[in-house]
Amino acid sequence: MAPLTVDKLNEHVVNAKYAVRGRLALRAEELREQLKANPGSLPFKKVVNANIGNPQQLDQNPITFYRQVLALVQYPDLLKNPDSELLFKKDAIERAKFLINEIGSVGAYSHSKGIPAVRKSVAKFIEQRDGFPSDPERIYLCAGASIGVTQLLSALSTGPTSGFLIPIPQYPLYSATLTLVNSTAVQYHLDEKKGWATNVDEVRSIVNAAKLQNIDLKSIVVINPGNPTGAILSEQNIRDIIDVAADDHLVIIADEVYQANVFVGEFISFKKVLRQLQQENPGSKYDSVQLASIHSTSKGMIGECGQRGGYMELTGFHPEVEEHIYKLASIALCPVVTGQVLTELMVNPPAPGGDSYETFISEYNGIFNTLKHRANNLYQAFKQMEGVEVQEPQGAMYLFPRITIPQKAIDAAKEVNEVADEFYCLQLLERTGICVIPGSGFGQQEGTWHFRTTFLAPGDDYAIDLVNFHKEFMDKYRD
Amino acid sequence: MAPLTVDKLNEHVVNAKYAVRGRLALRAEELREQLKANPGSLPFKKVVNANIGNPQQLDQNPITFYRQVLALVQYPDLLKNPDSELLFKKDAIERAKFLINEIGSVGAYSHSKGIPAVRKSVAKFIEQRDGFPSDPERIYLCAGASIGVTQLLSALSTGPTSGFLIPIPQYPLYSATLTLVNSTAVQYHLDEKKGWATNVDEVRSIVNAAKLQNIDLKSIVVINPGNPTGAILSEQNIRDIIDVAADDHLVIIADEVYQANVFVGEFISFKKVLRQLQQENPGSKYDSVQLASIHSTSKGMIGECGQRGGYMELTGFHPEVEEHIYKLASIALCPVVTGQVLTELMVNPPAPGGDSYETFISEYNGIFNTLKHRANNLYQAFKQMEGVEVQEPQGAMYLFPRITIPQKAIDAAKEVNEVADEFYCLQLLERTGICVIPGSGFGQQEGTWHFRTTFLAPGDDYAIDLVNFHKEFMDKYRD
Repeated sequence: MAPLTVDKLNEHVVNAKYAVRGRLALRAEELREQLKANPGSLPFKKVVNANIGNPQQLDQNPITFYRQVLALVQYPDLLKNPDSELLFKKDAIERAKFLINEIGSVGAYSHSKGIPAVRKSVAKFIEQRDGFPSDPERIYLCAGASIGVTQLLSALSTGPTSGFLIPIPQYPLYSATLTLVNSTAVQYHLDEKKGWATNVDEVRSIVNAAKLQNIDLKSIVVINPGNPTGAILSEQNIRDIIDVAADDHLVIIADEVYQANVFVGEFISFKKVLRQLQQENPGSKYDSVQLASIHSTSKGMIGECGQRGGYMELTGFHPEVEEHIYKLASIALCPVVTGQVLTELMVNPPAPGGDSYETFISEYNGIFNTLKHRANNLYQAFKQMEGVEVQEPQGAMYLFPRITIPQKAIDAAKEVNEVADEFYCLQLLERTGICVIPGSGFGQQEGTWHFRTTFLAPGDDYAIDLVNFHKEFMDKYRD
Repeated sequence: MAPLTVDKLNEHVVNAKYAVRGRLALRAEELREQLKANPGSLPFKKVVNANIGNPQQLDQNPITFYRQVLALVQYPDLLKNPDSELLFKKDAIERAKFLINEIGSVGAYSHSKGIPAVRKSVAKFIEQRDGFPSDPERIYLCAGASIGVTQLLSALSTGPTSGFLIPIPQYPLYSATLTLVNSTAVQYHLDEKKGWATNVDEVRSIVNAAKLQNIDLKSIVVINPGNPTGAILSEQNIRDIIDVAADDHLVIIADEVYQANVFVGEFISFKKVLRQLQQENPGSKYDSVQLASIHSTSKGMIGECGQRGGYMELTGFHPEVEEHIYKLASIALCPVVTGQVLTELMVNPPAPGGDSYETFISEYNGIFNTLKHRANNLYQAFKQMEGVEVQEPQGAMYLFPRITIPQKAIDAAKEVNEVADEFYCLQLLERTGICVIPGSGFGQQEGTWHFRTTFLAPGDDYAIDLVNFHKEFMDKYRD
């Protein structure tokens, strides 16, 4: 037998938990295989992965302009052939030529921070979004937001006494990575009754409590729009969080990957509010705030998760600190170059007047409206369900309903050694093929139960199946 | 000023060194920028990056078949248009259709271990290469070999007393990652006089010495063909290394990314030799050997570094240990999907009789012959140089000549606070624009000096510039 057993592994690796692809997701895979091998053997016809924001795994089509440019940069010989003008739009051809000229081959390693021209486009996008300058040298392209987050947490972590404030509920990348780097996750709870708002008074009191416990607080993680909650932070909320960060020298990690997925209200970036505060208060504490803002090509209307694009903008960091973050990027050589190309396309979409513009707008709006429609559909379904409370969908790709699990079900869960919401989600999966993630994977207030579902799945069947399952579950376990 | 200073960072991050993209590479970038801004301002016309195996940054063209399929999977609408038959070969179209059918959109996250169909192709490739079965479930696709290595080292590391045997000289990914995960690199020296062969007796004595120091040896890293040495391990060498691993329960990490870059002799995989030993000795210590074999789409004749493809095959690992390695892959979501596609194309090239076959073979052989020619050219140049010894190029993409640095130069280096070989390489860069990496970045026997250069750069100028610079340097510093 293999001499290397789990007890001899890195304990932090063993202890890390990642629910999004955990037990539920593994079981969903098994069921999918079973359906393939034996189609009639289960009470449903297909497995629906509502556990992960992966729009193109469901029915979302990629945006044509992006894919045209990507095809051309992969195979530039097409540009030499006059027949290709029949197949590609003029502005896609022009963009591909521009990028090929800047990059050379997408098969070459790029600069570890990313292709300079792409970083320039990102900086321009940020300037236009915020109305404040952005420096391409402060932009680090990364193969998906997760890589940027991992590099930051790894650079900032100094062992078990170093603390990172994370929201609860949170996207489990944060808790998993903090376990891996052997740091302490210091939790602040979002206020469910106020649409999952951030209660900055609570954050302050948690900061003070952590200090009393001699935790060396390094950073505060903010996810805006929220994952799994979908909540959008107000400008006041953002100001207050920056205040805490300025007072306590916390690096702000602003996970803003859902910035385009906003149905209610408005997305305001941390960078913009920070620059406003600095402008309003010259020579103040705000000058020393350090902010890492993260964006991705996996979400928004682009939804290109498998292409692994994204960027991180560092604001206010010490140049020597940046050198070490750059070194971490160097050890990984470079982010995948086609993902960098896609990042350029995301931040620099087709311009009005170009051949691709109308198709682009229609595809973009189509996806936006579909997502909004599906979010509301699911919201309405949850509102009907017995003992379920759910916040109005504001943004991101998720709903995070609170479910009242009857004591009888809690007891039944205990008997099979499962947490109550995991028990609920596993039964949902086994009965309907719908895979969602229990709230315990994201964190929740003691004694409350939730699950996270994407609202990406097409059709009404999905909502109907959820409603029917819930009724059945309640009928079986109602106290 | 920013409150976060280097002394507050993770010391392991601060201490990690990565010479391939270190000081020399940064200075090369500066010089390139200077030439762009002010073309006549330097004694050379261009900067040549011989510091990194990045063939498509120089003049190597991608292989057409790979890029045709990649363009089609990026933009599958092309398959619906009859005009595309004018632009793409029939077998490329068929392969793209097969892959799209297996994958869906390349914009969706895949299984964290990689697309099942791609893993099947990899397993088939390994079976054909080795003559022994391979299980697709033991294959983990990864975004470049570095990611697989990082996951393994991270899972196996249990702090400063855990040791990993690494060859000296080595590819600095290993030393850098071991610093990051806070483990100990235990060095075994390759034998320069015997063409950088692995001296297994030395390995054994180092294993014993490490045990006496209470180092918990976890693994032995082997790079075959060698980086930076280019040496190819003999079958007997491989058998002996497996023996050590079996006796001392070391996980073998076999970095085989240069397996197609072989000019002299033959590449034999660790997996094949392990299976032979198991077959020859049923029920023996070889049954419990744990091997991780790593391959990549960045090297070979494919050379698609920027696309980030590769795989790792785990042999003999405990299923529970594999679960945690799988979890690490899950936290990173999935390897870039187009890199997975390219991995499939690498292991399953166009078949004889197909429309792409002849072009493919001619491109492949063209690259192989060019690399061999350039390697020999450079080898001949080094052989002429005063005080330079160099091994005949056997494989990989590098030469690692030993240079005799005069005492006067060593003293001059000390004065400017540089290591002697770094001093030499910096002067080479400033005079000629050629960027190579000093041997100290890879490790070398005390008192010896080397540098690593790729043999990817085109033209004779490169070799001539090296020869001329060396003469000039010696004339200036000769004792």
